[in-house]
Amino acid sequence: MPLIVSITGSPTANSRTLALAAQIGRELRQRDFEVQSINVRDLPGDDLLHANVESAPLREAFSLVERADAVVLSTPLYKASYTGVLKSFLDLLPQFGLAGKVVLPLATGGTLSHVLALDYGFRPVLQSLGAQHVVGGLFVLDKLIERQTDGSIVLEAEIQKRLDLVIEDFVQSVRRRLVALPS
Amino acid sequence: MPLIVSITGSPTANSRTLALAAQIGRELRQRDFEVQSINVRDLPGDDLLHANVESAPLREAFSLVERADAVVLSTPLYKASYTGVLKSFLDLLPQFGLAGKVVLPLATGGTLSHVLALDYGFRPVLQSLGAQHVVGGLFVLDKLIERQTDGSIVLEAEIQKRLDLVIEDFVQSVRRRLVALPS
Amino acid sequence: MPLIVSITGSPTANSRTLALAAQIGRELRQRDFEVQSINVRDLPGDDLLHANVESAPLREAFSLVERADAVVLSTPLYKASYTGVLKSFLDLLPQFGLAGKVVLPLATGGTLSHVLALDYGFRPVLQSLGAQHVVGGLFVLDKLIERQTDGSIVLEAEIQKRLDLVIEDFVQSVRRRLVALPS
Amino acid sequence: MPLIVSITGSPTANSRTLALAAQIGRELRQRDFEVQSINVRDLPGDDLLHANVESAPLREAFSLVERADAVVLSTPLYKASYTGVLKSFLDLLPQFGLAGKVVLPLATGGTLSHVLALDYGFRPVLQSLGAQHVVGGLFVLDKLIERQTDGSIVLEAEIQKRLDLVIEDFVQSVRRRLVALPS
Repeated sequence: MPLIVSITGSPTANSRTLALAAQIGRELRQRDFEVQSINVRDLPGDDLLHANVESAPLREAFSLVERADAVVLSTPLYKASYTGVLKSFLDLLPQFGLAGKVVLPLATGGTLSHVLALDYGFRPVLQSLGAQHVVGGLFVLDKLIERQTDGSIVLEAEIQKRLDLVIEDFVQSVRRRLVALPS
Repeated sequence: MPLIVSITGSPTANSRTLALAAQIGRELRQRDFEVQSINVRDLPGDDLLHANVESAPLREAFSLVERADAVVLSTPLYKASYTGVLKSFLDLLPQFGLAGKVVLPLATGGTLSHVLALDYGFRPVLQSLGAQHVVGGLFVLDKLIERQTDGSIVLEAEIQKRLDLVIEDFVQSVRRRLVALPS
Repeated sequence: MPLIVSITGSPTANSRTLALAAQIGRELRQRDFEVQSINVRDLPGDDLLHANVESAPLREAFSLVERADAVVLSTPLYKASYTGVLKSFLDLLPQFGLAGKVVLPLATGGTLSHVLALDYGFRPVLQSLGAQHVVGGLFVLDKLIERQTDGSIVLEAEIQKRLDLVIEDFVQSVRRRLVALPS
Repeated sequence: MPLIVSITGSPTANSRTLALAAQIGRELRQRDFEVQSINVRDLPGDDLLHANVESAPLREAFSLVERADAVVLSTPLYKASYTGVLKSFLDLLPQFGLAGKVVLPLATGGTLSHVLALDYGFRPVLQSLGAQHVVGGLFVLDKLIERQTDGSIVLEAEIQKRLDLVIEDFVQSVRRRLVALPS
């Protein structure tokens, strides 16, 4: 079963970003992918800040990424860009740590005016990491994410439709990667 | 005496980036500025990663930035962008935490091909923080920075000249900020 | 009297962008600046597309920019960026054609989600041209620009206030440039 | 036979960029693609600058792009970004004029320090146009392109190897697009 690793970079516990990533993880599992999650704030802070790449929790996380066929990256937008929390993890990956992988970038934020941070700010970092295919991502306004008492979320209908399309395109791109082309 | 705060975002101890920032700090002191330094990796990692903005060391750092007339921001370039370490600190500043301030962005890196990360990647974050004037920055190739036994550095002659011009322009921009205009 | 050159890059005649630039020009004249305008679409298209820099109309336009103390650059946002029309003119300026100048970037557009194109897309080009100070710019939603029968425009009240602040900051930055610093 | 359209945006006649695009076109034809070319500077300048989308030569060019399975976009880098010539054409495409298409971005330039203009500056425009997959592009230093008397070019060996890899990845991505996935 192909492995998808979902990496979340919000500094707040129980963030909307994490809930969104979890929901997408559930949908991907239903479509016959193995999904493993890394919440960067759960890794040891000083190891990340000091680039202590031999730290056991970091090594385990790096190993997950290395084995992944595809990666979902979820971040809130702060100061018109991805979070330092997420980037502090990506910084420690090997130079081409996303080589051969399909990547889905997702962002949450409080204002529509930061949408382009995904394509202008984040995508170049993912290209630098050698991602094989960064599919079209999605920005979700915080207020369109409604939390349920069981921890799950409900998205406003229109954005849920767009998310479905984004996931469909991502899944197809991952599957195409795994198909052998006639030589 | 006007206050300049120098913030460095390298995850490695005794980095070239830190040595470069220290040298610039010395030059600014000689030009009658008070210079205070923040090395983000010396702040508590978990406080940064968990957005624990009430942490005493973070509050002290934020207070320095708030009081600054100008800020020097120094970062190595990782994955074609500023470090997560530096961004994790900037993320916790108030929304317009650089309002009214003159800002000098500096980067070090191993390849000339990442130069534009300063203008394309970093500058938009500084604008988002409301910086009054982000002056022309400088990218310094690692190999042009030669460490001395006393911890200081010597820059290759041509890049030292360019740094002198950048500092001169920065100093003039800070001074212009402090001059009262005839109304 | 200091000279400000206002360059507009909309491909459509009588565009909102042009009307906005004209209004700002009037306000700057009232504040004792000479204002000259370049509407790129009025220049000979083939000269621009063929980099015919000896063309008389282009040389006249380049000369205006060279003499300018400050430049206002206005563009609609197309495909999440400044227009090709505007860039085709900037491409033919000397390598550091904005050196020593204060620059005000303005954009109009149909969706708030393109705001960051100014800071992420346009500002790096202006830095590359050596601009001394690119002040904080402004994005104006098309629908907040109401045309009057006399060709002038009325802006929605809130955006007019923000424009006033942007112009005030620009004017002060230009004036600071022209003040001799005590040596 | 799948159709690839090659669009070149250099303002100079017989540019290295055009010669590079032509060479890639020949290689793609040998791999069983139909290749059609658009050299934007050959289109009527005033039609581009005035957004005269009903112009016959423009309509013909738009129609080619619409029919294309994949697009190669080649530009010299001016002022740290793609040319205005190229953008003035892209500006007139429909909002999602690259939807469903695989896109290969290529740039030429005089300095390695502008490499990131591809990922930071150009790629966001291509995403905005709805490109299905923007594959990894290539920047080629002018001096690594040697013209032959017959108009063809010879690339320095190392960059030719990298170009071969880029073309191979592009070709595979186009072919994957055309394979029917098992539903």
